[in-house]
Amino acid sequence: MMDAYRLASEPYYLPVGDEVAQFEAAWQARLPTMLKGPTGCGKTRFIEHMAWRLGRPLVTLACNEDMTASDLVGRWLLDAGGTVWQEGPLTLAARHGAICYLDEVVEARQDTIVAIHPLTDTRRALPLEKRNEVVQAHDDFQLVISYNPGYQSMLKDLKQSTRQRFVAIDFHYPPPERETAIVMHEGHVGDDLARRLVAVAGKTRNLKGHGLEEGASTRMLVYAATLVARGIAPVQACRMAVVQPLTDDAHMQAALSDLVLTFFD
Amino acid sequence: MMDAYRLASEPYYLPVGDEVAQFEAAWQARLPTMLKGPTGCGKTRFIEHMAWRLGRPLVTLACNEDMTASDLVGRWLLDAGGTVWQEGPLTLAARHGAICYLDEVVEARQDTIVAIHPLTDTRRALPLEKRNEVVQAHDDFQLVISYNPGYQSMLKDLKQSTRQRFVAIDFHYPPPERETAIVMHEGHVGDDLARRLVAVAGKTRNLKGHGLEEGASTRMLVYAATLVARGIAPVQACRMAVVQPLTDDAHMQAALSDLVLTFFD
Amino acid sequence: MMDAYRLASEPYYLPVGDEVAQFEAAWQARLPTMLKGPTGCGKTRFIEHMAWRLGRPLVTLACNEDMTASDLVGRWLLDAGGTVWQEGPLTLAARHGAICYLDEVVEARQDTIVAIHPLTDTRRALPLEKRNEVVQAHDDFQLVISYNPGYQSMLKDLKQSTRQRFVAIDFHYPPPERETAIVMHEGHVGDDLARRLVAVAGKTRNLKGHGLEEGASTRMLVYAATLVARGIAPVQACRMAVVQPLTDDAHMQAALSDLVLTFFD
Amino acid sequence: MMDAYRLASEPYYLPVGDEVAQFEAAWQARLPTMLKGPTGCGKTRFIEHMAWRLGRPLVTLACNEDMTASDLVGRWLLDAGGTVWQEGPLTLAARHGAICYLDEVVEARQDTIVAIHPLTDTRRALPLEKRNEVVQAHDDFQLVISYNPGYQSMLKDLKQSTRQRFVAIDFHYPPPERETAIVMHEGHVGDDLARRLVAVAGKTRNLKGHGLEEGASTRMLVYAATLVARGIAPVQACRMAVVQPLTDDAHMQAALSDLVLTFFD
Amino acid sequence: MMDAYRLASEPYYLPVGDEVAQFEAAWQARLPTMLKGPTGCGKTRFIEHMAWRLGRPLVTLACNEDMTASDLVGRWLLDAGGTVWQEGPLTLAARHGAICYLDEVVEARQDTIVAIHPLTDTRRALPLEKRNEVVQAHDDFQLVISYNPGYQSMLKDLKQSTRQRFVAIDFHYPPPERETAIVMHEGHVGDDLARRLVAVAGKTRNLKGHGLEEGASTRMLVYAATLVARGIAPVQACRMAVVQPLTDDAHMQAALSDLVLTFFD
Amino acid sequence: MMDAYRLASEPYYLPVGDEVAQFEAAWQARLPTMLKGPTGCGKTRFIEHMAWRLGRPLVTLACNEDMTASDLVGRWLLDAGGTVWQEGPLTLAARHGAICYLDEVVEARQDTIVAIHPLTDTRRALPLEKRNEVVQAHDDFQLVISYNPGYQSMLKDLKQSTRQRFVAIDFHYPPPERETAIVMHEGHVGDDLARRLVAVAGKTRNLKGHGLEEGASTRMLVYAATLVARGIAPVQACRMAVVQPLTDDAHMQAALSDLVLTFFD
Repeated sequence: MMDAYRLASEPYYLPVGDEVAQFEAAWQARLPTMLKGPTGCGKTRFIEHMAWRLGRPLVTLACNEDMTASDLVGRWLLDAGGTVWQEGPLTLAARHGAICYLDEVVEARQDTIVAIHPLTDTRRALPLEKRNEVVQAHDDFQLVISYNPGYQSMLKDLKQSTRQRFVAIDFHYPPPERETAIVMHEGHVGDDLARRLVAVAGKTRNLKGHGLEEGASTRMLVYAATLVARGIAPVQACRMAVVQPLTDDAHMQAALSDLVLTFFD
Repeated sequence: MMDAYRLASEPYYLPVGDEVAQFEAAWQARLPTMLKGPTGCGKTRFIEHMAWRLGRPLVTLACNEDMTASDLVGRWLLDAGGTVWQEGPLTLAARHGAICYLDEVVEARQDTIVAIHPLTDTRRALPLEKRNEVVQAHDDFQLVISYNPGYQSMLKDLKQSTRQRFVAIDFHYPPPERETAIVMHEGHVGDDLARRLVAVAGKTRNLKGHGLEEGASTRMLVYAATLVARGIAPVQACRMAVVQPLTDDAHMQAALSDLVLTFFD
Repeated sequence: MMDAYRLASEPYYLPVGDEVAQFEAAWQARLPTMLKGPTGCGKTRFIEHMAWRLGRPLVTLACNEDMTASDLVGRWLLDAGGTVWQEGPLTLAARHGAICYLDEVVEARQDTIVAIHPLTDTRRALPLEKRNEVVQAHDDFQLVISYNPGYQSMLKDLKQSTRQRFVAIDFHYPPPERETAIVMHEGHVGDDLARRLVAVAGKTRNLKGHGLEEGASTRMLVYAATLVARGIAPVQACRMAVVQPLTDDAHMQAALSDLVLTFFD
Repeated sequence: MMDAYRLASEPYYLPVGDEVAQFEAAWQARLPTMLKGPTGCGKTRFIEHMAWRLGRPLVTLACNEDMTASDLVGRWLLDAGGTVWQEGPLTLAARHGAICYLDEVVEARQDTIVAIHPLTDTRRALPLEKRNEVVQAHDDFQLVISYNPGYQSMLKDLKQSTRQRFVAIDFHYPPPERETAIVMHEGHVGDDLARRLVAVAGKTRNLKGHGLEEGASTRMLVYAATLVARGIAPVQACRMAVVQPLTDDAHMQAALSDLVLTFFD
Repeated sequence: MMDAYRLASEPYYLPVGDEVAQFEAAWQARLPTMLKGPTGCGKTRFIEHMAWRLGRPLVTLACNEDMTASDLVGRWLLDAGGTVWQEGPLTLAARHGAICYLDEVVEARQDTIVAIHPLTDTRRALPLEKRNEVVQAHDDFQLVISYNPGYQSMLKDLKQSTRQRFVAIDFHYPPPERETAIVMHEGHVGDDLARRLVAVAGKTRNLKGHGLEEGASTRMLVYAATLVARGIAPVQACRMAVVQPLTDDAHMQAALSDLVLTFFD
Repeated sequence: MMDAYRLASEPYYLPVGDEVAQFEAAWQARLPTMLKGPTGCGKTRFIEHMAWRLGRPLVTLACNEDMTASDLVGRWLLDAGGTVWQEGPLTLAARHGAICYLDEVVEARQDTIVAIHPLTDTRRALPLEKRNEVVQAHDDFQLVISYNPGYQSMLKDLKQSTRQRFVAIDFHYPPPERETAIVMHEGHVGDDLARRLVAVAGKTRNLKGHGLEEGASTRMLVYAATLVARGIAPVQACRMAVVQPLTDDAHMQAALSDLVLTFFD
């Protein structure tokens, strides 16, 4: 039943520190776990890797503000013979022992998030008021959320009553050597190009808060490398994959383009 | 019918003061009762303990802003043979004599909360306008709500017309000796580690309002202990279970990490 | 058909002034009537008493912001053989001659309240647009609303076009002798304790607007008395039933606790 | 079919000026007409009187913010044999030649009000998009709205593009002689009492904008007279029917009570 | 099928300038067209006239804020045999070659307006996502919108990405001679009265922005003339049809009444 | 099945720079692609051209604020035999290998946009929670969005977590020679007129931010040319197609009209 949620092959993931051991300890105790880190640094890839490594199905939800508690838990649908219960992905994961991954959890209304609280209590039970049923979570169920701390406004933040229900694993961009290896592997380019792209990214990350909302992610470097591998010149590839997506400000675009030129001339 | 709502085994709860006797007096008179206290200090565990002790089923609702009066009281659903009545959890509890526990009641819209008022009047009756029925509460029905007073904004507070319908039992973090015992029992660690974790928590609680929104809860200490029991070093466990979940502020994280080091070096 | 809405026994009510005669005059002319007064002073009990005294069924609605005109008036529901009309409680009361009591009417959206206007006009008719029917109110129908005037914000107030459709009966906390008698009767305690509780309440009522949003209601005193009758010490009972429900402010709680001690030492 | 909307007997109405002739001229040309005036001055009674006089059915709608265009125009409902068209009251009136009276039109969302525009154009046609039908208004259809100009905020006002589609008839409280006659007729009291009540009302109307939102309406005087006729003393009757409904401000209530005493001592 | 949308007789329209030729050029190229001008100056009458002149059915929509894309495009309805497609008026017009006229287009949410964009692209196609169908517009389909430029707030304005998809035809009040002819024809009055009414209107239009939100429209003059033709004195007719509808401000009403007297004494 | 989404003939598109090669490189790697540029500069035409060139069906969605995740992904509809799955256009494109083009993506609520994130991850999978199915994107599926960077307010902008998932291709108005050729081809006019129109547009583009929100688009020039070809004088055509649509400000309209005269006298 959960086969659609099992990963078919091992997702490529290059560990940066002790995150694998940390997650495994949390998993063994089935502690609710929060992955903190900037956009595009590899949190989603990490949880896919861990789900594959632990042999568990992975139910992923991209959170958004329209998501209601019913979208998580389930609802009644009308069928030919009356109403049928449409199990929500959170209930599905809890009942069948999947890892349930709520991506960008702060995008959900905090009040919707409250629906996950009972699964983080000691009883690990999910009350389905609409069915008058209390689902006892499967022994292998684990709840994981992702969270970008540099990103939230006051209006969109996790409440303490939610935060304190999770242990946290901290993510950052990989160190240059590791990131170079990732760009080579994922972008199918050589060491020299990858190294230059990583250097460009490092410069942009220093500009965070100084004209840029975020620095370039590892994902962006992989995109740039991919374009070069398809015949786009490196400077143009950086413009398409890094400069233009990062900012709409003409002055900032010019500064970033100059920066790119210092690495590729 | 209410078996799904009965606790299968005695929930662990270590009393801190006279709260058990206070609750029993309120229960005997079936007074609506409000549990006041900070997040993670044991309010939910307490009501589970009391429900088990008094032999009553416990219907728990995690309140949220999407919760309508219909979610509490019930609604009509379409079935093969027409519409059928879907009894809401509050009605279920009132009709069959359960304790109904509304967790984090201020998350609900205050106007939805008004739906519980008739059950707190002398008549203890719940009008189901949608069925033209007035449910007389079972003799064993009791209404209990939880409330975190340090937490509410002006916009989200209980109105006097609701508050004055409840007697209140006050909760705080347990005193150090009790909290140490809880961490040892729940986290499966020894006395020395538990004592140090409790000391760390005490320091963070002093920082409430001075850079931290809340101090570390007992739950966080249990998580940290659990991670240590699974092989994570104590300093790293505190980082995962206390420092990172408490705050996103880099300076505050550094200060808390230093604080942890003074207890584990 | 209206039996569910008839009171089975005489509700205890101790008159404070001429309110019974005033209500009877309004009832004889079937004038729409507004009960004004602070929370917990006995408005709901009064209308229950009058309904019993006048031998009329009483349809009570706790108003809230989600309440739509359809919740008052009625709606079409889907049944096996198509849609059926679900009569709303206001229509039910109008058609069958009950007293319809809208509790805390300002909680309803004022625009929903407009739905009651036609029943307060000379024609006493309720148009059901959804059925293309105009219900002529039963001769015994009366509309009664409750309203806490010290409580409303600018945003939630009755509009003049609504207010001017009602005659008003003013309620206040009962004078000490009457309130003592009520606490003795309802709380099952002796004269001395009741008298002290009433004295405490008097002091808190003087603090309204000086740190307290509202003073202690008669209901709170009954709760405190009830706890004492169940074995809780008077000071602790006041803390549970008066101090903690009245305020979350630590300084105010301390001041109120000191105040309680001056009456029970 | 429109019998439910015909008035059974002549509604009592005492003309104040030329309003009957003005309305009849507008009616003859079927011009959309707006009745402007303060709350409770007799606008609704006037249109009932005119509908009776002109022998037309009267479809009244108390406007409110929840009212959608579908509530005016109609909607599809599900029935045993599929969906059936539920004709809205505006469509009903347009098709069968009733006077359609939108009471307190500014309470409706202005955007909903746009739905009435096509019936005020020369073509007098109402497009039912949901039925792909264009209803040509019956020759006897007339659209009338009421509007309280002293009352609207900037946020709730009629837009010029709506206002300019109506001719207006201005209403005020009746002059003393007329108002005294109305109070005598409607309240079943003698000349002396009615005269004093009208004098009280005159004083309160001078206080509009000086502590009172509105002055006392004719309706309030009829209520006060009615209470006196049922045995309530005049001063108390004024308190119930005028002072308390007009204001919640304690100082203003005292001033109004003093004012009442100067007329009844 | 579109017969309900064909005009039965020629709508009276007196051209003011080259607007007929301008519209015909836009029509020949099927360019999306925007009629700009103040309220009541004849935009709706013009498009009715052009539809009659060009022999095309006219589908008119009075835009409002509740209008969703589905109201324009269509939706699925439940029928006895399942769901049936309810074609929206925009789709109807596109498929069968009508002129689709969106009146007061800025009243619609700008995001709903986006639904018309594909019909203004070169492909003139309307994707019906809900049917997985792409409707190719009929050769005779044309999209026309009306827009009152002096009226919009910053919050309600057409976006450039919408505006730039339309050619515009500018409308103003007709010059005095033409307006006099219109008032005579539509109001069934003589030259002298019509001339005076047009003079009054001219004065009020100078007051736009100086105490009046808008000046008197041609429509208002026709109303005033109509009332005079039904026996109302000219000064009173101006009060009913011009002064009272234009403003609620007592001072402004007095000034306008004086102004009227200077033309009719 | 996707035939309705295939272009029947080659859409006219005159390349401005390397955009075709850039898009082809992104297409080969199936990278999610963002077309950035001002309104009316040819982004939609470009993607139609590329879809035709690459032989792929094109599913276009005009984004708007009402668009929910279900509108993109799909929903259950009620049919005669129960509920049937209505596949959304995004799912349709993903399953059958179309290019999915989200036009004016910032008009959609950013939270709805989150629904496209999983298709931009390495796994290129779209979870349909409502069907408990995970759709693996067809090899030929590509996601393309359009975005007008000079246009967004702070409230409506693409979030970094979305932006960083796309490579960007930059669009501007074509250089004069190219734009002249486009106007000649699309507007069916000669070289001299087209050249003058392009010169007018250039002047308006310099006024962007100096009284104009946007400059004239290429589309506007084509409209003006089209009107001239239908017999409207050039100055009047510019007034209809450029001046009036660009601005409602009377002073700005006069300045633009003067500007037009300098090119056509």
